[in-house]
Amino acid sequence: MSETSSDWQNSTIDETQAVEHPETATAVAAITALRQTIDNVDSAIISLLAERFKATSRVGVLKAQAGFAPEDMKREDYQIERLHRIAVDAGLDPDIAEMYREFVVTEAKKRHARIAAAGGDPGVLDVFA
Amino acid sequence: MSETSSDWQNSTIDETQAVEHPETATAVAAITALRQTIDNVDSAIISLLAERFKATSRVGVLKAQAGFAPEDMKREDYQIERLHRIAVDAGLDPDIAEMYREFVVTEAKKRHARIAAAGGDPGVLDVFA
Repeated sequence: MSETSSDWQNSTIDETQAVEHPETATAVAAITALRQTIDNVDSAIISLLAERFKATSRVGVLKAQAGFAPEDMKREDYQIERLHRIAVDAGLDPDIAEMYREFVVTEAKKRHARIAAAGGDPGVLDVFA
Repeated sequence: MSETSSDWQNSTIDETQAVEHPETATAVAAITALRQTIDNVDSAIISLLAERFKATSRVGVLKAQAGFAPEDMKREDYQIERLHRIAVDAGLDPDIAEMYREFVVTEAKKRHARIAAAGGDPGVLDVFA
C-alpha cells in the first residue's frame, strides 16, 4: 500500500518506501526517537506544573485570608529577571521563558482572584489540588 | 517605619507589624516558603523547556530536509489525549495542560517554519540550541 501526500506529512512511512527512500526512513526513525524525548520532557513538565499550581493555590488561600492583593508587581519583576537569566544559562530563547512566565502567572492570578471571591476557600480549584 | 498599603500588597512586612499582626506574619512566612518552591519548580521547567526546544529544533531540521510539513495533526491529537491523561493523574487542571501544549507546539511550529524557510538550516535558532 503506497502512502498519500498527507500521510507523508504525518511523518509515517511504509516498508516499501523505506527501501525506495532510505534517507527518508532514517529521518523518520530520528524524528520518532526525538518525539519520545519530547513526550518524556512533557510528562516531567506536567508533573512540575501540577506542583506549581498546588503551591500557587496555597499562596492564593493565604493571600485571600490575609487580605493581600492577588497581583504582586515586585514579585513579577523578580521572576522576569530571574527566568531570563536561567533561560540564557540553559540555552533557551529568553522570549520562550517570558511566554512561559506570563502563562503560569496569568493562570495563577485568575485562580487567586477566584479564591479571594470565594472568601479564601480554594473550593472548585481543590478538584485538582 | 510603618508600611503603606501598597507595601502590604507586595507581601512584605516589618518587625513592628509582625508583632502587631502575628497571623499576618505567619502568612507572609508561609508565602515566602511557597515562593521558594515555586522558584525551584520554575528553574526545573525552564531547563526542561530548553531540552524540549533543542529536540523540536532537531525535528524541524529533519522535517525540512525530508520535505515534511511542520504541522502534524495526528501527532497533535496524540499529544492532546496523552497530556490530558497525565494532567489528571498528576492532579493538574487538564485545561492548564492543554494551554501548555498549545504554547509549546505553537512556538515549535513557528520555529519549524523558519527552519524550513532557511532550507533546513536552524540558523538563528542555534543561538539558543
